[in-house]
Amino acid sequence: MTNEKRAADVCIAVDGMGGDYAPEQIVAGSCDAARILGCRVVIVGDRERIERLLPGTGVPPNVAVVHADGVVAMDEAPAAAIRRGASTSMGASLQLVRDGTAQGVFSAGNSGAFLALATIRLRTLAGIARPAFATAWPARKGPMLLLDAGANVDCRAEWLLQFAIMGSAYAKVAFNIASPKVGLLSVGTEEGKGNALTEAAFSLLSTAPVEFIGNVEGGDLLLGDADVVVCDGFVGNVALKLAESAGEYFFGVVKETALSTLRGKLGILVLKPSLRAVRKRFDHREHGGAPLLGVRGVCIIGHGRADAKTVVNACRVALRAVQLDLVGSIGSMLSTLPPASVEAAT
Amino acid sequence: MTNEKRAADVCIAVDGMGGDYAPEQIVAGSCDAARILGCRVVIVGDRERIERLLPGTGVPPNVAVVHADGVVAMDEAPAAAIRRGASTSMGASLQLVRDGTAQGVFSAGNSGAFLALATIRLRTLAGIARPAFATAWPARKGPMLLLDAGANVDCRAEWLLQFAIMGSAYAKVAFNIASPKVGLLSVGTEEGKGNALTEAAFSLLSTAPVEFIGNVEGGDLLLGDADVVVCDGFVGNVALKLAESAGEYFFGVVKETALSTLRGKLGILVLKPSLRAVRKRFDHREHGGAPLLGVRGVCIIGHGRADAKTVVNACRVALRAVQLDLVGSIGSMLSTLPPASVEAAT
Repeated sequence: MTNEKRAADVCIAVDGMGGDYAPEQIVAGSCDAARILGCRVVIVGDRERIERLLPGTGVPPNVAVVHADGVVAMDEAPAAAIRRGASTSMGASLQLVRDGTAQGVFSAGNSGAFLALATIRLRTLAGIARPAFATAWPARKGPMLLLDAGANVDCRAEWLLQFAIMGSAYAKVAFNIASPKVGLLSVGTEEGKGNALTEAAFSLLSTAPVEFIGNVEGGDLLLGDADVVVCDGFVGNVALKLAESAGEYFFGVVKETALSTLRGKLGILVLKPSLRAVRKRFDHREHGGAPLLGVRGVCIIGHGRADAKTVVNACRVALRAVQLDLVGSIGSMLSTLPPASVEAAT
Repeated sequence: MTNEKRAADVCIAVDGMGGDYAPEQIVAGSCDAARILGCRVVIVGDRERIERLLPGTGVPPNVAVVHADGVVAMDEAPAAAIRRGASTSMGASLQLVRDGTAQGVFSAGNSGAFLALATIRLRTLAGIARPAFATAWPARKGPMLLLDAGANVDCRAEWLLQFAIMGSAYAKVAFNIASPKVGLLSVGTEEGKGNALTEAAFSLLSTAPVEFIGNVEGGDLLLGDADVVVCDGFVGNVALKLAESAGEYFFGVVKETALSTLRGKLGILVLKPSLRAVRKRFDHREHGGAPLLGVRGVCIIGHGRADAKTVVNACRVALRAVQLDLVGSIGSMLSTLPPASVEAAT
């Protein structure tokens, strides 16, 4: 961490047209990020629309605009987005990383298209078969990283090994944990409990250069000891969406139950600030975005409902990952793998 | 529902030695069930220990004891439990259903062994390849049945179709819904979103004799419209354990946050009765147990921590399933399937 880059030397590209509240909220957030974090921010998209949103005098000097005509629609097929290359704001943002102008990129747009474009334009690291979406959970004992959260719905055991290595590198950087504990999501904690995929992954993980703590179960995603949990993207996506909905569900049930009595109504009123603080913990805007791990560049994908606050937090994650050389760390961990695992991966 | 059996004509076998609080709580619950529900209850296990627990005079006349020497240990391999046949309390309980003495069976013991023993001793219904564990969730809009919750960690698409039919039949019986809405758990609601398994299952379900509403996502398990959600037992088990832990997690976080302020402490005190009511909704003891669907008999498997209350609720579920002829309903729905699906299943 001695050679850590200065924030001013880092440039983050922001897809100005991606997300439900683009470009307004994205532009506002990009200016805030530049001001708060001190890194350079390049907003990519329809120059005219973006510049109209930039406040006349108050634009930080470290904000720039790069023009791109097209916008990848939220429901556009990844293949179509790929065909349009760097003509879209998303494609052009990734191009800035590819040509070295930017070191990190954020988009709140179509995540399937972002995954495909990032994989094609930036390429995966040597030894990585497929990039994975990683999401940080506010688990009981601290932050917990789950991957894959949806990039790869059908996985091979070697990929789970690669996810473990990438997740471990990210947890070191993002959570500042020296030796992150890695768990394999399964249906029982004993070795041998699981499906064909996890059984094969278990033996690969047992000899991997990570601190493998064995199988973990669904409940451990919120209450367990692991810092990183790996699974295929189908299970990870179901778990993520279930956990996201659990907050809304529980607060809804508590409110409904409480509001049926006078005492309960009073309790809700008194407890409101605490409940609000808890909700905040689960607010996707606080977390910024999910890193796409395994490509040659720092890529952060945001929730479609990203607002200015999300953009700031996402840029903070991206800046941190660049400063601590996340991509390089993953590369070095991969280079310690026995050749067989790497061959199987490519 | 016109030929509904009288409760007094139904006999439920209870594995007296299965579960963390056996035989004490199981025996107490069996007596309560016989008294409250009016059905006959046969407690199976170590006669001497069980009879010592039966209160001298107050034992209901509709309670009987059947002796079995052995006990299936909680960590015993299913194959070992099978070898011991009907010599264990679990095996002997299932034998009572097989020979027609009982119509339903409940065990809070080793669920893997129960699954294996029930499959071997009772056999699956014609057209059912694998039995599935079904669990009822207290979802936002009413009860929701998830299956498979862990019996089959690697599934074929035809099995998911069979789960849909079994779940639909159970929801009709247990939730009293004329035409249960069946969802397929996946990573997106659009057709075509999913993994290889769900894509194949989607097309089978589209022409199945159930009200198929398409793909549902993780969040729909708590907030969605489906009455029945089908998935493989790996995903289902992860989701079930995650949802079970979410209550503990959220109440823990709310409590911790609130207790850090005086106002919060007061709020928790005032809101206590409401919070307790919500917790009750998630108490596994209230739900009794998970039906094992697809075998020739009503089988209910309980949580290892089952107490007397669980036994009563599990016997209530079993009695209801017998009275409404759950097994027959599944059989009739299966008979309407095109022959190809049935062949693929066997």
